Formats: sequence, structure tokens, C-alpha cells
Amino acid sequence: MGEEEVSNKQIILKDYVHGFPKESDFLLKTSSTIKLKLPYDSHDAVLVKNLYLSCDPYMLNRMREADASYPTPFTPGSPINGYGVSRVVDSSHTSFSKGDLIWGITGWEEYSLITDTSLLFKIQDADLPLSYYTGLLGMPGMTAYAGFYEVCSPKKGETVFVSAASGAVGQLVGQFAKLMGCYVVGSAGSKDKVDLLINKFGFDAAFNYKEEEDLNAALKRYFPDGIDIYFENVGGKMLDAVLLNMRLRGRIAVCGMISQYNLEEHEGVSNLFCLVIKRIRMEGFVVPDYYHLYPKFLELVLPHIRDGKLTYVEDIAQGLESGPAALVGLFSGRNVGKQVVAVAHE
Amino acid sequence: MGEEEVSNKQIILKDYVHGFPKESDFLLKTSSTIKLKLPYDSHDAVLVKNLYLSCDPYMLNRMREADASYPTPFTPGSPINGYGVSRVVDSSHTSFSKGDLIWGITGWEEYSLITDTSLLFKIQDADLPLSYYTGLLGMPGMTAYAGFYEVCSPKKGETVFVSAASGAVGQLVGQFAKLMGCYVVGSAGSKDKVDLLINKFGFDAAFNYKEEEDLNAALKRYFPDGIDIYFENVGGKMLDAVLLNMRLRGRIAVCGMISQYNLEEHEGVSNLFCLVIKRIRMEGFVVPDYYHLYPKFLELVLPHIRDGKLTYVEDIAQGLESGPAALVGLFSGRNVGKQVVAVAHE
Repeated sequence: MGEEEVSNKQIILKDYVHGFPKESDFLLKTSSTIKLKLPYDSHDAVLVKNLYLSCDPYMLNRMREADASYPTPFTPGSPINGYGVSRVVDSSHTSFSKGDLIWGITGWEEYSLITDTSLLFKIQDADLPLSYYTGLLGMPGMTAYAGFYEVCSPKKGETVFVSAASGAVGQLVGQFAKLMGCYVVGSAGSKDKVDLLINKFGFDAAFNYKEEEDLNAALKRYFPDGIDIYFENVGGKMLDAVLLNMRLRGRIAVCGMISQYNLEEHEGVSNLFCLVIKRIRMEGFVVPDYYHLYPKFLELVLPHIRDGKLTYVEDIAQGLESGPAALVGLFSGRNVGKQVVAVAHE
Repeated sequence: MGEEEVSNKQIILKDYVHGFPKESDFLLKTSSTIKLKLPYDSHDAVLVKNLYLSCDPYMLNRMREADASYPTPFTPGSPINGYGVSRVVDSSHTSFSKGDLIWGITGWEEYSLITDTSLLFKIQDADLPLSYYTGLLGMPGMTAYAGFYEVCSPKKGETVFVSAASGAVGQLVGQFAKLMGCYVVGSAGSKDKVDLLINKFGFDAAFNYKEEEDLNAALKRYFPDGIDIYFENVGGKMLDAVLLNMRLRGRIAVCGMISQYNLEEHEGVSNLFCLVIKRIRMEGFVVPDYYHLYPKFLELVLPHIRDGKLTYVEDIAQGLESGPAALVGLFSGRNVGKQVVAVAHE
């Protein structure tokens, strides 16, 4: 065995997406096969069985034709890829051995041959749910960590606002802020999510932005003395309202702008003059620039997870075939907590 | 003498300004008088004769009713104030003596009694034209210095774009960039100004933004490999075009947004997502936060001015009565170089 070919179901992007993505932009291809052994002349590659796949907001930009250097678009007609958790089936790379559990960039398919191993991490702590390595212990966890600690330079007692706060990144930023001794408020798009923020993740307050006619007034209600740190996940109108409510020398970490990803024309942000009068620093960041901090990150979060001080909510869709619906649902806010697709239970 | 009262002409703001300011928003009051001696019970105050007054873009925001903490609005019915160069006539402050030359915040009038001395600096080097202390050697000079060196962290060989580049701040930023070994391009609003940038201030290139239908295309022409540093003076459409042309890890120092000051509704900026994909830091700053660096600044610029490596162009209006027209002209770009009002030649 191993020499024989096995079936390898794949999720294919049919063509570049315009506007809002639909399930029908993808197809489940059942006719592919793969050998469960690397070719003899393979170098620095791994062959993996995929266990969990991660649905992340940045993937929408990859469904579009490139208009910027980052991130690289998907290839229509081919399986899409993204972060996932996998078991190594065969390896010609000295850092990975058959049987290892890894997380990093893999294909949306049952088995993947990975030749670019630069974004693969070996999982050392397998006592926690493996799906956590698509979120809390993976890319979104590192995003929250880098954006909050490295970009925002938070101080005890500061006020923190997080948008899209119940998502994979936001729920962690809020908990990091509480660990730091900050006052933290989150916004989300449903009552369930708001409840989760307050009752599960320990945010000091939270509100449903869809029920606020005047975002500026809502922010003034929760931050009568203004906002020191804004963890920006949504862009558009929310950013405009936040700018009016920032405090002197506030910091805005721009992680994403999910409210804008579906729009052909981005909403204009009109209150940027606040950057001057309030001496605000607004900084975009992407997580790959910070992966050298991953060991330091684990050192911080693992003890807190084990003793229950950091909690985490996932929304797990079962089976590769449920992938397109799960991924598309992210952009209408259908998921509650981190959206994962379980491909295989070992 | 000194005990008697002398005439003290003043420039008064009639009422808060809406939209574009006009000369008629101000009046020259000729009926005021002032004693040329401080009261006996005066503490920590100076009485000065004003020599030069500075016209600066931020002053438009002071003509409006406050909608933010900075800057403090003018008081309708009273003389306006701003940066200027003055001779001390009388002093009850230990740091200033009769006869000293100073620069800092003073009134738009012939003589001023200054009780808030926190923004007064003694002029030590009076061999250079005194009007320079309203620009090159004063607040605009420190603004260029702080914004370029402190906020932008420039490196040799980087590409720099400056908008409103022939103004008091812009002309210096361009020259600092050249001293640093950067490639620098400026935009301005007339052929004369563009000529000045290239022939007088040594910019590598310059363009008239009013003659460019497509600012994005213009920037691509001058920066085929993108912009590392943008010194932002204008906001609006220019900022949107710049965002598309920034390089990875670029920096934007937000000094002002003069294109927006006259608009009741600010233009929306739509390309902020570039902050994320290009990891851009965009930071607002105001110069009072950096005045502790003034001695270090003088150490840098004085030798360069004396040996002609830093040049400077002023547009001097004669007489206090020419003040309103000079100030208002700033917002239609009428001035070429730093706009100053000469109140008295000693």
C-alpha cells in the first residue's frame, strides 16, 4: 500500500468571484486521485492527510483577481488552499516525519502534497483539541497576539474596542485585553454573539452594531472618555465612528476590513483628520511578519488555556463537502465563533 | 514714557467662519490702546512688540467652532493669535528680559501682553533674517523635522512624496529628504511652485496636481517602484491615490489635510485596506509634542542654512492691515513659499 492511488476529493474555485461569494462559486471534485507516497526524487516536501481546514476572512480577497501584492489569488480550476491541521503521511523534509501533526497552509482536499513548507508548524502540544490549531493556537491566535501586543502596545487600564469581536481573532483580543487589565468592549452582528462576548469571553460590554442607528452615539455610550486602542476588523462606517471617539495618542491596529470585502466600491472614511488632532497611530499588519514570535505566544497562552482563563468557541462544519457553505457563511456572519471544517477524524 | 498708552491696531475675527474664509471675516480695529509697561503685580508675563506674524494652515480650524480638542478656536470679537516673532518690551518672567527677541504664540496686533509663555522661545541666533523664526527656524521647521525624522524614520535611498510641497513645511521636508539621500517628489498647485521645487529646493521631480486628471497614474509615473514615505499635508483624493502607490512597510506622517479644511463634508478615503496588505503605518502628529527637540533641530539646520545647503522662500505681506488677505490667501494657494506678515521693522 502507499504505491496505490486513492480517491482525493477537492474543493475547486470555478472562477474569480465578483461581489458576494456563493456556494455555487465552488465545486466538489470527486474524480481526483493521489498516491500516498512522495515521488523518489522529492525534496523538502510533505504529503499530508488533512484533518481540519480553517475559514478565514482574508480568503475572500484570494477569490478575486489580484489588484495588490497580498494575498496571492486562488487559481480557478484548482483546489483552493488555506490554513489547516494535517497528519504527515510521507516526508522528504528533515523537519517533518511520517506521523507528525502539523498546522499551516494546505489544500482544501483530503490529501495534499505540500512543496512550499515555509508556513508549516509542527504541533508539539497535542493534548488540546487539534482544531484549535486553526484558531486559538494557529494563525488567528497569532494575529490577535501580534496585533494587540506588538502593534497596539497596550497598557493596564486603557480602554479597548474590538469590532467583529466574536470571530476567531476578536474573541482572543478581548481576552488578552482583560488579562492585561484593560476595559474592553466588542461589537458583533447578533444577540447570540453579543451574549457570547459578555458571558463567555468576559468583555466588559458588547453591542449589536446592526441595532445601532448611530455608531458614534453607541461608542460614546460605552466609552464616555474615549478609546485608547481600536482593534480594527471591519472598516467603513465603524472606523469613521471610532475615529471620532479615539483618545489622544490612541492606536488603531488594522487587522482587516471585512465590511468592505464584498463591496465593489469601498465606503469612504471621512474622519481621518482625527489622526492629526488626536495624534493617532493607525497601522496595518499581517501575521506572517510575526511568526518568529510563535514560541513566545505559546508560552503565554498554553497555561491560560489549560487553567481555563482563555476560552474559545468554534463552529465546526462536518465534512469537506460542507466547506463552501461554511466559507461563504463567514461573509454573512452566519458562524458563531471560529469557523472550521472537519475533513477527517483520524 | 512706558506709562502712557499707545495705539495698538488689532486684527479681529468677527464671527466663526463656515466654509471658505474671506477677508471680510476679519476687521482691523484701530481704536485699542496699550500701556508699554506691565502692571506692577504682573507675574511670569511678557509685553512684546510684534515684528512678524505667521500664516499657517492649522489656523483655519481655529476660525471654526470647536468640534475637537485641538486646536483651540479663536474668540470672535477678539484679536486672533498665532506664531510670530517679537521684541520684549517689558517682562516679569525670569526667562525673558527687555530687549530679547522671541518667537512663539503672540497676538495679531502691534503689541501683545502674553501671559501664557509656555510656547515662547528665545532667539539666540539673530544673524539670520528674523522672519525665518516664523518658518524655517520656527514652528513649520520643527514640524518638518519632527514629521520627517521622528514619525517617518527615513532611511537613505528611500522614496519620499510630499504634498503641498512648496509650503513652509513641505519645502523643508523635501530638503531634509535630499540631505538624507532619499529620492523626493513634490506636488503643488501651480507651474511657479513646481519650478521652485525643482530649481530652488532640489526635489528630484515635481508635478502640478491640478493638471493631472488621474493622480494614481501621476504617482505611478514618478514612483514606478512605489512610495516609502508620504508626508501628508492635503488629504482627500491625493491620499487615496497615494495609498495605492505605497510600498510594503511604508510610512505616512499626517501633518495636515488642507484640501479638507474648507469642506463642510470631508471627502471619503476609500483605499485604507492598503494599510493592511502593505503593512503601512499612518500616524498623525502635532508639533508641540516635539518642542523638546528644538535645540537638536537647530544644531542640524543652522550650519546647513549658513553654508547654503538649506534654502527657504518666503512670501512677505507688508503691514498688519495686509494680514487678513495674506491669511485667507493661504487656503486658495495664492502664496508662493511661506506666508508671513511683517508688522514692524524695528
